[in-house]
Order: sequence, then structure tokens, then C-alpha cells
Amino acid sequence: MRHFIIDCDTAEDDIMSLFMLIKNGVSVEGVTIVEGNISYEQEINNALWALEFIGKEIPVFPGSDRPIVKEFRSVPEVHGKGGIGDEIVKPSKLKPQSKKAVDAIVEISDRYPGELEFLAISPLTNLALAYLKDKSIVDKIKKVWVMGGTAWGRGNITPVAEYNIWVDPDAAKIVFNAGFDITMVPWDVIINYPINDKEWEEIKKINTKMAQFYIKIYTHYRQYSMEKEKIGGTPHPDLITTSVALNKNVIAKSEKQTVDIENCDCLTRGMTVIDFLGLWGKKPNVEVVYEINKKEFYSMLTDLLNWF
Amino acid sequence: MRHFIIDCDTAEDDIMSLFMLIKNGVSVEGVTIVEGNISYEQEINNALWALEFIGKEIPVFPGSDRPIVKEFRSVPEVHGKGGIGDEIVKPSKLKPQSKKAVDAIVEISDRYPGELEFLAISPLTNLALAYLKDKSIVDKIKKVWVMGGTAWGRGNITPVAEYNIWVDPDAAKIVFNAGFDITMVPWDVIINYPINDKEWEEIKKINTKMAQFYIKIYTHYRQYSMEKEKIGGTPHPDLITTSVALNKNVIAKSEKQTVDIENCDCLTRGMTVIDFLGLWGKKPNVEVVYEINKKEFYSMLTDLLNWF
Amino acid sequence: MRHFIIDCDTAEDDIMSLFMLIKNGVSVEGVTIVEGNISYEQEINNALWALEFIGKEIPVFPGSDRPIVKEFRSVPEVHGKGGIGDEIVKPSKLKPQSKKAVDAIVEISDRYPGELEFLAISPLTNLALAYLKDKSIVDKIKKVWVMGGTAWGRGNITPVAEYNIWVDPDAAKIVFNAGFDITMVPWDVIINYPINDKEWEEIKKINTKMAQFYIKIYTHYRQYSMEKEKIGGTPHPDLITTSVALNKNVIAKSEKQTVDIENCDCLTRGMTVIDFLGLWGKKPNVEVVYEINKKEFYSMLTDLLNWF
Amino acid sequence: MRHFIIDCDTAEDDIMSLFMLIKNGVSVEGVTIVEGNISYEQEINNALWALEFIGKEIPVFPGSDRPIVKEFRSVPEVHGKGGIGDEIVKPSKLKPQSKKAVDAIVEISDRYPGELEFLAISPLTNLALAYLKDKSIVDKIKKVWVMGGTAWGRGNITPVAEYNIWVDPDAAKIVFNAGFDITMVPWDVIINYPINDKEWEEIKKINTKMAQFYIKIYTHYRQYSMEKEKIGGTPHPDLITTSVALNKNVIAKSEKQTVDIENCDCLTRGMTVIDFLGLWGKKPNVEVVYEINKKEFYSMLTDLLNWF
Repeated sequence: MRHFIIDCDTAEDDIMSLFMLIKNGVSVEGVTIVEGNISYEQEINNALWALEFIGKEIPVFPGSDRPIVKEFRSVPEVHGKGGIGDEIVKPSKLKPQSKKAVDAIVEISDRYPGELEFLAISPLTNLALAYLKDKSIVDKIKKVWVMGGTAWGRGNITPVAEYNIWVDPDAAKIVFNAGFDITMVPWDVIINYPINDKEWEEIKKINTKMAQFYIKIYTHYRQYSMEKEKIGGTPHPDLITTSVALNKNVIAKSEKQTVDIENCDCLTRGMTVIDFLGLWGKKPNVEVVYEINKKEFYSMLTDLLNWF
Repeated sequence: MRHFIIDCDTAEDDIMSLFMLIKNGVSVEGVTIVEGNISYEQEINNALWALEFIGKEIPVFPGSDRPIVKEFRSVPEVHGKGGIGDEIVKPSKLKPQSKKAVDAIVEISDRYPGELEFLAISPLTNLALAYLKDKSIVDKIKKVWVMGGTAWGRGNITPVAEYNIWVDPDAAKIVFNAGFDITMVPWDVIINYPINDKEWEEIKKINTKMAQFYIKIYTHYRQYSMEKEKIGGTPHPDLITTSVALNKNVIAKSEKQTVDIENCDCLTRGMTVIDFLGLWGKKPNVEVVYEINKKEFYSMLTDLLNWF
Repeated sequence: MRHFIIDCDTAEDDIMSLFMLIKNGVSVEGVTIVEGNISYEQEINNALWALEFIGKEIPVFPGSDRPIVKEFRSVPEVHGKGGIGDEIVKPSKLKPQSKKAVDAIVEISDRYPGELEFLAISPLTNLALAYLKDKSIVDKIKKVWVMGGTAWGRGNITPVAEYNIWVDPDAAKIVFNAGFDITMVPWDVIINYPINDKEWEEIKKINTKMAQFYIKIYTHYRQYSMEKEKIGGTPHPDLITTSVALNKNVIAKSEKQTVDIENCDCLTRGMTVIDFLGLWGKKPNVEVVYEINKKEFYSMLTDLLNWF
Repeated sequence: MRHFIIDCDTAEDDIMSLFMLIKNGVSVEGVTIVEGNISYEQEINNALWALEFIGKEIPVFPGSDRPIVKEFRSVPEVHGKGGIGDEIVKPSKLKPQSKKAVDAIVEISDRYPGELEFLAISPLTNLALAYLKDKSIVDKIKKVWVMGGTAWGRGNITPVAEYNIWVDPDAAKIVFNAGFDITMVPWDVIINYPINDKEWEEIKKINTKMAQFYIKIYTHYRQYSMEKEKIGGTPHPDLITTSVALNKNVIAKSEKQTVDIENCDCLTRGMTVIDFLGLWGKKPNVEVVYEINKKEFYSMLTDLLNWF
């Protein structure tokens, strides 16, 4: 059985990623929460509320509510104030752990050394801080899956930077240079595989409780992405990354390359720089995903939506 | 008749660009020399030597031999120590002007207000300094054609920066923000249109004096580009830009966008940042060329090689 | 009784600071170790070895062995490879704790809320990481005493930066902006109060075990400071800061000011910028010590040297 | 006879500096105008108006109206909108030259090679651009006198940066690294030698046309400096630098040191970094003035005020 920590700045796509892990029989050892998409408190509430929806008691560990050094901004305009649209939900019973994410990551790494996988669909602050506390997690965490960065310099929060990396480029720099086994799914790759109108309508017809839930929580994000970012449907950065983590066949093309992070406070803050020419003479540190097998992903998505 | 200044860091592709202008009936009012590919003295000598080869007395104006603020390096490994391979040539009679490029640019702008075109196949130091001396050249220079930058963050001197812009990112920032009417032909666009083996052999068969000259001065650059940069033939950054300037049909696809330059001393120094999302809310300032009509370019090249 | 954590990159002056705390009846709850002066392992060993010398079992918590984001270098040329000269010492029995400094700082803060004082005579990485893990320590730690920075832009590791701040300017920026009650003793203040030749000879005559120990461990540092840094004796950055923490009368002049840290990777990296003009309109966050009562300090030092 | 160019962002202290040069028998070959204190147009007008006041026809050359790369702001709150208070004056007859400052500097250097002195009481844009146009001016200009920078990191426009250097730190970096023979008079030195209340009253009693003029144009600046900057009188940054250039005895203490400029866009932008420890291993490039002989300066000032 595979053991995961999932690190969330909990909006709609984080929630479905969590569900996809569970649906696919992975043991989710913890959900760690980090600054990002919306208000920090709501991110925690969303995670607990989502767990109540599927009736699972997985520990939710609050982590960092700010980048290590820099300033950032959340993006309620993208995901709605509630992260699942403008509605503000609350868990009815579940509570977050008092243990901090940084400690949870270290402890869970100790519990499953060489087995634990870390799914980062969020800024990398929590993982960076855990690493700074205990460098031995590099050897204990088998795999780090990162939704973030760009392959071709086409960002979302700035022209060249993707949001997750931009929020805390220092954390990203720490993580990318720490020696983890990283697979990175870039923003300007995943936007080529949105859920288009035809698929959206197909999903509506599934009509399970889960499919209704999906339609409801993605409506705001879908609209924003299509209107403001001119994407041809709902993008699924987190969920595609999750499906990549679960199923190698979702990757149609990838390359092991050397990647570093621009962490200056400048025009290009938060850019992922890929040394595709080998100019730095450094060992490749990241498997960069360049193409997705859309069919495979879509099949995993509909499988999830047919759960219940 | 069109009036041009051509700004060179004179290697093989600069020379053929100069020839292409003349062959196409353009009035070249001056060649300005700037720091870049090889030793500054040799850049001047190459320009004069090339003019002697075609028997034209066009004034060559020495300009800046260094970036405005930053440090740079020349790239003799790419073009050979002599810029046309390792051979070091000298003009037999022609001499450079004593007038400085910065003054020549201002004066020629005054001579052909609203008509002059500036072909920058080189770092932008000279044009930036001319602008800083006399801002009115913005209105007098009809068009600035720039070989430089990247469209997709695929550089040559660093992973994300193209050489010409990298050498003097401050100059580029000045020029790109000055209000000139700029068309930019990016490095990661032109490398899709190299002169491949078949074409190279065809050119050999042309066997004019010009074709022999071409084969001779490009051999080093061709070899370097194919072996070290894994390009499928000889790239023609300067010459494609020149053909774009001469003939609109060479452009297969372009877009008017807002472009700024990363001029920090950091990982991404010299990157051209294209605000493809319109996040900055600034008026588009650059026509970015995304696709080239290879046939049209190749036809202009062979036309040139058949000159004499 | 006052409760302290002392944060050390353990060289000679850190050791005497630890002794001074204990001699003056303070309860030292822990020694936390951080990257800095010499090899990290030796810094731990020095702390344990020093505790054995005075026969005290105070827990030593290993912390960060590197700055949060940036690169740094240790300075064995200043303190000797062993930090007390070139001799490499080892504790005979004592061992470091397995608990990490970041956790120890949070736990001890919880144990003595509103009472704990943090004496940072070292880069600020440990305190910054503890704060990033648990922001509530800002209210629990009564006082942070910092040896570091400059008052007049006269540094030691660069022309304008003092070593402790330079090593981890990001950590310093985090700590200085967190809201702690900070008193800062700058390098270019303390170098005005070295132990001069006359005092050095007086100390030799004290001839206690402690005075002999002092002479032995400071000889390398004294020589380096006088020869290479042209200081008129042995500087005591850490020990003066410790005496300031213990005894208000050691401060002859100080001012509450707004201080921020230059954390760019540039000429001025690690500089403490004091907004002495109030240009930023921010609330003063640091008591900056400008003058020392040398007599008071010297009396505390000789008192310590007469301990046993 | 000594030959000078005086470079001005013409406010009250620039005007008196120009007068002091002339009064002391120096041949002022040109006044070059640069962006700085107030609106560029008014700076030109002030220079011409001042020349009309003393009846001298010295050519005024317009130069750069902006820093080379960065953004800046003028400081009418300091000098008044008119630079001599809020009154806006105009020359009645004199006109600026059409020749640009950058060309004038090069030509006058050619006219007096090895003799020309450049008095920069202003941002260094014009001199930097002249140098970038023609590097040979380094050998032709005998001496560059700079009012600018700080000796102890006590600035005026930011906590650590003095206005002239801050406005165009890139220009300053170019000039300071070009090889000129530079004497620099720092802001945090000259503010120790203001014209105090007693002297101000003495000057009022002189009651010449010039003394009345002095009182009138300095009233705004005096008030601002005393109220807002807590200086004990009227500071004379430009005029003290001018007196230093004219009379070595005005310098009470100076040191030849290596100075570089922080030109990043960061907290410390525009700081003059003095390598007082020799850490960079570079040849000293600047004579830094640390103390002024106030009596000598005051005597030169009153001598000027008694002119007519």
C-alpha cells in the first residue's frame, strides 16, 4: 500500500485530489495545510468539510500561513472566497490537529521511511520547513509530486510564474535543491488538457452524489478560467498531478532535467528555470512532465465521479 | 527608397545581413558596431573587410565596446575567434569613421526623420545610448527590427536568455520601454528554421563567389550549432531578422504584445518577459514574431547567393 | 529567576557568554546550536566540552546547520579551526539532545511564557525557523538579545555587513519583522571596547582556572583581530551582548529605532538598515545600542574570571 | 588657470557653487544640466537666470532628464518648486545651447586634455553617458569632484542612500569604476558643518546684493533642513564640495579608499559602499572626505557674499 501526505491550499481541485487518492486505495497519512489560494482558516475548514463529505477521519495538520520570507497574495477571484466558489463552508465535527505540519511531515517520514510520498499541489513552504528542521526526510520521502512551475515560461500569476512557486519561491528553491526525487507537472502543460464543454456535459449526466459535488465546487473556477484566462474548459492542475502520481500512464512525455527557481524580488520572481541546454553542468533533479495522456486522466476522473 | 542603419557585432550572420540589405536595394546609411560576439576590434575589421568584398564604401561607426552597466562575455567559441571561423581578417583600405555610433544614429535620424529604420542584430547598447542622448529619435526612427530574446523562455547563453539581450539587458530595457515601433524575432523561433543538410548541399552547388563566401564563413558556426546546440542545421538569427525587415511575407505568424526585460543580476538576467496575459495593463510595445515562412526566407537567401 | 535560551555558533566568545549567564544566576534552559563560525559538529562539541569544564548538564539542542535560503561560509581563520584556536576538543561524556532546536525553542517558550529570554549571539536561523513553526512564540519570548548588525555600516564579513546577519539575512529579516522585543548590539559599536593590552595582562595575573581558560581560548581570536582587523585588543561581541542582557548599566547609550535587513544577493547583503530618519513610517522595532559602559562590562568580565 | 565643467540639478546650492567657481577665478567652460532636484526645465532656467544675475555668459548645456535605467523622483519639497524656494524664475535673455551635455563634455575634454575638472554636485548621469560615448575622457579629465554618497551609511533620500547617488546608481557605478581621479564629499560628513543661526545672522548683516540674494534663495532649504531633517542650520553639500575643489585646506581629513555603488533595486539602492577593510583587494579609487575645516569654508563663503 502506498503512503501519502497531501499538502493543500484547499480549493476545489485540492479536494478532488484528496478524494482521488482515497478512491484509489492510497493510505493518506495526513493532510497538511499551507498558505495559498484563499484565507488560511477557510483552507483548513475546506479540508475538514471535504473529509466529512466522504466520511473519512484523516488528520489535518495546520502548517505555515505565510511564505518563508516574501510577501504573497491569495487568489479568491480565481476560486471564489470559499475556494469552492463564494460559499463559505464549515465542518460540523472534525477539528484540525494541534500538531504542526512541519512536525507531522517529519514524524510520518520516520514512520514510513523510503515509502512515504508527498503530493504538493500548493506552495512548498511546509515541505521546505520540514526539510530545514530535519534534512533526513530527503532520504525517507520516496517521491515528491509537485503541481507547479512552467515548462515554457507561460505563467498565471505573472507572465512567467505559476502561482504555487511564485507564492514562496524561496521554499521552492530549498525543495528543488534538497535532493528529493521530484516529478513536476507544470501549469503551461496542464492547461492543454482542460475539461471541455462536451466533457462537462457528460459529467453532469453521471449524476452521482460525487458528480453533483464536482459540478458544484468547480463552477466558479471553470467560469473564471474560461473567461479570464481564455482556457478552453476547466483546468485541473492538482487533479492531473494527482493522477500522474497514481498512474504513470497519465504521463505521455517527460524529461529528467535540471530545474532551479528564480527567487529574486524581480520581474521573473518565482519562475522555474529549466536548464534544457545543460549549461550549469548540474545533475538533473526533476522529472518535468511535458505531455499528458488525456484519455487516461479523464478515465480516472470519471471513475472517481462514479464512486458514489 | 528605404534607409537603414545596421547595428552589428560582426560575425558571419551580420555580414550576410548587411549584404542582403544592399542586394535588396536598401540605402544603408551606416554600420554601427557594438560589443558582442567577438573582440571589438575584430568586429570593426570584419565589417570593413566585408564591405571591401562587395566593393561598397558604407561608413562604419564604432560604438560602445561594453554594456552600459553590467559585465558580459563574448562568444568566440560559437563564431570562431575571427567571427567567421578562426581566421582573422583585415580590411586592406577601408577605415572606420571617427564619428561615434551614438552621434551617427542621432544625425542620421535627423537626416531621414520618419523614414530611418534600425536593424539591431546585436546587443542594444548603441541605440539605448543614442536615445539617452536625444529622445527625439523615437519619433524619427520609423522602425526598430530586433534579433533577440525568446518567445518561450528557451535561450542560448543561459537557459532563459538569448545572447543579444543578455549582454546588455539594461540597454534592452531602455529601448523596449522608449516607445519605438519594434518587431522582435526571438531566438527560440528562428532555431526552428535552420539551413539543413539538404539546403547546405544545394547552396554549395550554387558555386558563385558569394555562395563560396557563404559556405566559408558559416562553416564554424554551423558545426558549433549542430554539435553543441543540437540544432538541425545552420541557424540564421540575424539573416532571418533582416529578411523579415525587408519582406513582410517572411513572417508567418506574429502578435503585438507587451514585452519587458529582466535586468536584475540573477538567474533570469536578460530574459524577455512577454505579458501574454495582459496582467500589467500596459499598451503592447513589440510585434513578436512566432512563425517564419521558411520558403520565403530561403528564396531570399538563395537570391542573395546568386548575386555574383 | 530569569530563564534563557542561548543560541551559539560555539567559538570562544560564545563559551564565555554561556559561562557568564550561569555565573550570574540565570537559569539556562537550553543551548541551541546554529551554523556559523566553524564546522557545525565542532560547534556542538565545543558547547558540550565547555559545559563539562564548568560541570553543568544543560541540554544542547542541535539546530540548523545552514542558512534558510542562501549560501554562507564559516570563518575558521578568525576563531581557529577549533573555534577556540586550532585545537579540536571533544566532550568526554555529554551528548547533544535528539530534540531539534526549533522544537526546543517552541517547547521552552511554552514552559516559560512571558518570561523566556533568547540570547542570539549567532545567525538567526534557529529563531526564525521556530517562529515560522509557531508564531505564538513572539508573545511568549519576553526579550531577544541580538549580537549582530552594524550601526554605522562598518561590517566585518563585507564592508557593510556583520557576520551573524550576513550568514542568514533572510532569517534576520524574518526575526526583525516578527514583532519580538529586540535589543541589538552592533559590531561597529562593540569594537570600540576591546580588551586592550593592559587589561589582557591584568587578566593573566588573575590566574584562576577560569582566567587561564580565558587566555587560552581567546589567544587565536585576539591575534587575528589585532593583526587582520586592526582592532586595539580582543573584541567581545558576544560577551558584551551577554553582559548587556544581564545588566542594563552596561548600556551607556541606546535608541529605539526601526531596523530592517537587506536580504538581496548583492553588494550590501546582510546589512542592517536603520531608518534613523523615520522615512518608512514604521513603528520602531529594535533597541539599538550605540555606546557601552566599558567599566561595567570589564567588572562583569573580571568577576566571571574570578569564579574559580 | 583652472578649467571646470559644473554639472547641476540647479537649486540654490548649485547656483552659489557656480558663483564661487567664477568668483575664485576659475574658467567655467560649461554648465551641464541633469535630472534631479526639481523639474528639468526649471533647472535649466535657474542656471541661465543665475548667470544673468552675475552678468556672465557661460554656455548651459542640457543633458539627461532621467537616470540611465531606473526611475527617480525630484524633491521640490526640499528646495521649493522653483529650487530657490517656491518662486519660479526665468532668464530674460539667455538661452540654453542646442549642443547636448554628453557632447559638450567630450568636446571640452578634448579642448583641455589633462586640465579639465568636472564638478558633479548632482546625479552622475551626464558624466556616465559622456564616458560611455568616449572612454578617453577618463585620461583627459584631470579631476572629478563629487558631492554625493555617505561615509557612514546615513543618507537623506533613504536611510542609507544620499540623493545624488540614489537618483542614478547605475551612472554612479559607471563613473566610480571608470578610473577617474575622484574626490567624494559625503552627505553625512557635510551635515556636520551647517551654517548655524549665528552665522546666518552674520550673513544677513553683510547686506551686499549677493548676501541678500543668498538669504533669499536659501530660506526655503534652510527651513526644510532644520525642521524636517533636524540639521542645525543650512547644509551646504554643493558649496562645501565646490570649496573643497577650489581649496585643499577645506579638507581637514580624507582617505583614499575603494568605493563601489549598490545599484540593485533594493532596500539599499544607491548606497556608497566603502571597502574600508580592503576585503575586495581592489585599488583605491576615491578620495573620501571625512572632515571639513569649517573656518576655511566659512571664510570662502563670506568672501563670496562680499563680492558685490
